[in-house]
Amino acid sequence: MSAVAAGRSPGREQLPEGRLSVIALDGVPEIRPGDDLAALLIEALRSTPDALPLREDDVLVVTQKIVSKAEGAMVDLTTIEPRPEAVAFAERWDRDPRQLEVVLREARRVVRMAHGVLITETRQGFVCANGGVDASNIGPGSGTMVTLLPADSDASADRIRAAVRAALGVDVPVIVSDSFGRPWRWGITDVAIGVSGMLPLDDMRGEPDADGRIMRSTVRATADEIATAAELALGKTTRRPAAIVRGAHPTRGEGRIADSLMPREFDLFQ
Amino acid sequence: MSAVAAGRSPGREQLPEGRLSVIALDGVPEIRPGDDLAALLIEALRSTPDALPLREDDVLVVTQKIVSKAEGAMVDLTTIEPRPEAVAFAERWDRDPRQLEVVLREARRVVRMAHGVLITETRQGFVCANGGVDASNIGPGSGTMVTLLPADSDASADRIRAAVRAALGVDVPVIVSDSFGRPWRWGITDVAIGVSGMLPLDDMRGEPDADGRIMRSTVRATADEIATAAELALGKTTRRPAAIVRGAHPTRGEGRIADSLMPREFDLFQ
Repeated sequence: MSAVAAGRSPGREQLPEGRLSVIALDGVPEIRPGDDLAALLIEALRSTPDALPLREDDVLVVTQKIVSKAEGAMVDLTTIEPRPEAVAFAERWDRDPRQLEVVLREARRVVRMAHGVLITETRQGFVCANGGVDASNIGPGSGTMVTLLPADSDASADRIRAAVRAALGVDVPVIVSDSFGRPWRWGITDVAIGVSGMLPLDDMRGEPDADGRIMRSTVRATADEIATAAELALGKTTRRPAAIVRGAHPTRGEGRIADSLMPREFDLFQ
Repeated sequence: MSAVAAGRSPGREQLPEGRLSVIALDGVPEIRPGDDLAALLIEALRSTPDALPLREDDVLVVTQKIVSKAEGAMVDLTTIEPRPEAVAFAERWDRDPRQLEVVLREARRVVRMAHGVLITETRQGFVCANGGVDASNIGPGSGTMVTLLPADSDASADRIRAAVRAALGVDVPVIVSDSFGRPWRWGITDVAIGVSGMLPLDDMRGEPDADGRIMRSTVRATADEIATAAELALGKTTRRPAAIVRGAHPTRGEGRIADSLMPREFDLFQ
């Protein structure tokens, strides 16, 4: 059966093995603090061709920005008094000292602060540039507002998943995604910062590979891969902030994103 | 127009914005040294439902393993005499000293060698665990064979792209992909190790975001994202080693993967 035929089948039929499709949701409005994000996403699902009915192999990916905005995880930089360290670094590297102050407040530790780049481990445990504090795509007239990472993106994903299940009758995993840089390579890719209803990792250690040889060290970062696939369809300059990824077949379960974060003492790349 | 309808349209029509599909190729046989990989991929394209006609927004992703095998980038471990350093490390951490020797021979420098993990910068400039030397999925009866990274994966991609264009009349970008680990997070994701016909990065700096605000530091690792999306459809234990990613809209051009590798002095994560 072709993917095209599968795409037309109603109900909970899955895409055949080897097929994946990503459907960016149409019609998600500008999100404001206090908005019922899940309700708006369900409306968007209803208005996006082919998105419904949801299927057992769907994952709903929601970008951090709209989760943070709905939850009010935003700061107005005009209210921020930067510490001297932030002022000095900002002057030297043409940065906004108030934004640096916010990054430092959100940090559990500073990993690197040099050459105009500030890399921290956030209170949630993510190592990233500028602590996930972001000034882009906040909305019109939002010149001095920045978004913070959601306080608990797993819980954010849980709430969206529960609302989708209640409204549409299908329990699909939900991922909250954000764009992070990587060492050694230029450019950002999207990763998962919160999950609900799936395991973030697929541990294939001990499973035989196609030759029957035991794979010793293959743990796949499935949630990150799904977040990345969604990003390719969402693009960066459009208003599409959520997507359905169909056919990825994550392992269902009550995973938490912390499962995918490497304790510092294990991180041999450092 | 829905993605389903678009999938049925012949010719070079593109998927609508916000849609992405991945089609793993059926029928790629077990690859052996000296095989004409491009010809086998073209046959597979012909036998995969919906893969043809190729479209302007397609990217062909080919996994490293079959490129290395076709090019004979393999080593029989029984021919390898490990250096004392490799023997000592292998004994301590239950590793194969001959495989470690191969990793060290393929390395430009050793980044870390501790706790049973060997991270090197390969001669191609990639920082990864075990230097891209891999013993899984080599083929039946290949107990002592390992694959190396292709000597020049951009050139490998160039050859496949030229052959596809000659046979099928469409110039689609080609990515050679491999699975790498990341710092700070458990699990592997696929990245690009070679490109042809596209830029590995999309520099969105200076382009206005959806609010008209200038995005200061958004460089998207498009080739890596496409490699990752392909991996989700290919899976890890199947024999599917190549996929078409449709709708990603990379920037066309004569990019080289080195463009996406960060010089050591810029890498603030280290």
